[in-house]
Amino acid sequence: MPNSIRNELSGTVKSVKIGDIVSEVVIETPAGDVAAIVSSDSVKDLALSPGDKACALVKATNVSVCRCTCGGH
Amino acid sequence: MPNSIRNELSGTVKSVKIGDIVSEVVIETPAGDVAAIVSSDSVKDLALSPGDKACALVKATNVSVCRCTCGGH
Amino acid sequence: MPNSIRNELSGTVKSVKIGDIVSEVVIETPAGDVAAIVSSDSVKDLALSPGDKACALVKATNVSVCRCTCGGH
Amino acid sequence: MPNSIRNELSGTVKSVKIGDIVSEVVIETPAGDVAAIVSSDSVKDLALSPGDKACALVKATNVSVCRCTCGGH
Amino acid sequence: MPNSIRNELSGTVKSVKIGDIVSEVVIETPAGDVAAIVSSDSVKDLALSPGDKACALVKATNVSVCRCTCGGH
Amino acid sequence: MPNSIRNELSGTVKSVKIGDIVSEVVIETPAGDVAAIVSSDSVKDLALSPGDKACALVKATNVSVCRCTCGGH
Repeated sequence: MPNSIRNELSGTVKSVKIGDIVSEVVIETPAGDVAAIVSSDSVKDLALSPGDKACALVKATNVSVCRCTCGGH
Repeated sequence: MPNSIRNELSGTVKSVKIGDIVSEVVIETPAGDVAAIVSSDSVKDLALSPGDKACALVKATNVSVCRCTCGGH
Repeated sequence: MPNSIRNELSGTVKSVKIGDIVSEVVIETPAGDVAAIVSSDSVKDLALSPGDKACALVKATNVSVCRCTCGGH
Repeated sequence: MPNSIRNELSGTVKSVKIGDIVSEVVIETPAGDVAAIVSSDSVKDLALSPGDKACALVKATNVSVCRCTCGGH
Repeated sequence: MPNSIRNELSGTVKSVKIGDIVSEVVIETPAGDVAAIVSSDSVKDLALSPGDKACALVKATNVSVCRCTCGGH
Repeated sequence: MPNSIRNELSGTVKSVKIGDIVSEVVIETPAGDVAAIVSSDSVKDLALSPGDKACALVKATNVSVCRCTCGGH
């Protein structure tokens, strides 16, 4: 369903760590790894595992910016 | 300073739209454009403009995931 | 696309206020009005207007709880 | 105390799952279940248990919206 | 009402800037100024103005940390 | 690196609780204790322990406000 979440970064699931309440999913994207911490129930419902195609979704109001002085480019 | 924010996506400032209270900065990254909505005072302090090297910073607890059925890969 | 966002509250768009950078969408749900502040570009892309069927999406890590002593039940 | 959090959804505690650092509280509201992930210390302080009257609190900047094409209405 | 929001920083309203959709409230606390961006409707409802006693409320999952190498202590 | 995160509260690490996926760091600041829930990997990378100088970082869009009627001032 079309939604208002501006940032959708496509990639491949690199790792899934299931925790008691929340779990960590790391998605490998062309811009580097993106770590998501989501509820464990959601991760089980999605049945995500390494190698699956997945997207990281981020609301624009939850993104900060920094001016880069590192060599990371 | 080393901090706990897990996701730091490097790229180049594509656009800056200054608003009355918040402003929108779009950073072009290898994984696509990332839109950030931050306070206008911050954007002025950082003096960001198109072409500058910048990073999008996102706390892992603010990232959701979806299983991709689109052709976006 | 199936995603990890746990809370999806269905309702009807009650009002849309377009701002310079962000906009406010109020969705009338059986649990009361839910106000969302999202980027104006997203609201224009979705072309939402009063009377449309819509859902409010909220990540579980962004929900706080309180014990109710009010008569609001 | 009067505060700026726009969304206060009244309901009844359906379940409480206590975790090592965070816990999950599900509140049954007229708009469906709302899942909250909050710190375990908070949940213990509030001493919430199933059947208690409770509200889900959500800041408007943390609500996204989608146009509904599902039959969920 | 007792709620799960762990961080409540007391202080005095230093400034209020009303915007079209969101507004900025700066609260002077013993730990320095804390800036909040909240919906303009909330700010008008609270009728906050400089000199008023107010608290900044922050959910623990929305706080990041950094190791300090600056002299800011 | 200069970034857009408006709120940086300096203090001293009071406690660190390591969890399976997320961990809790409490920082003692002049405005009271600030609790942060961040990914466990970040906490281990930062190697924070009680007595260390640290800052709590909070994006302005994640701060709510309340009018204080308590004696907390």
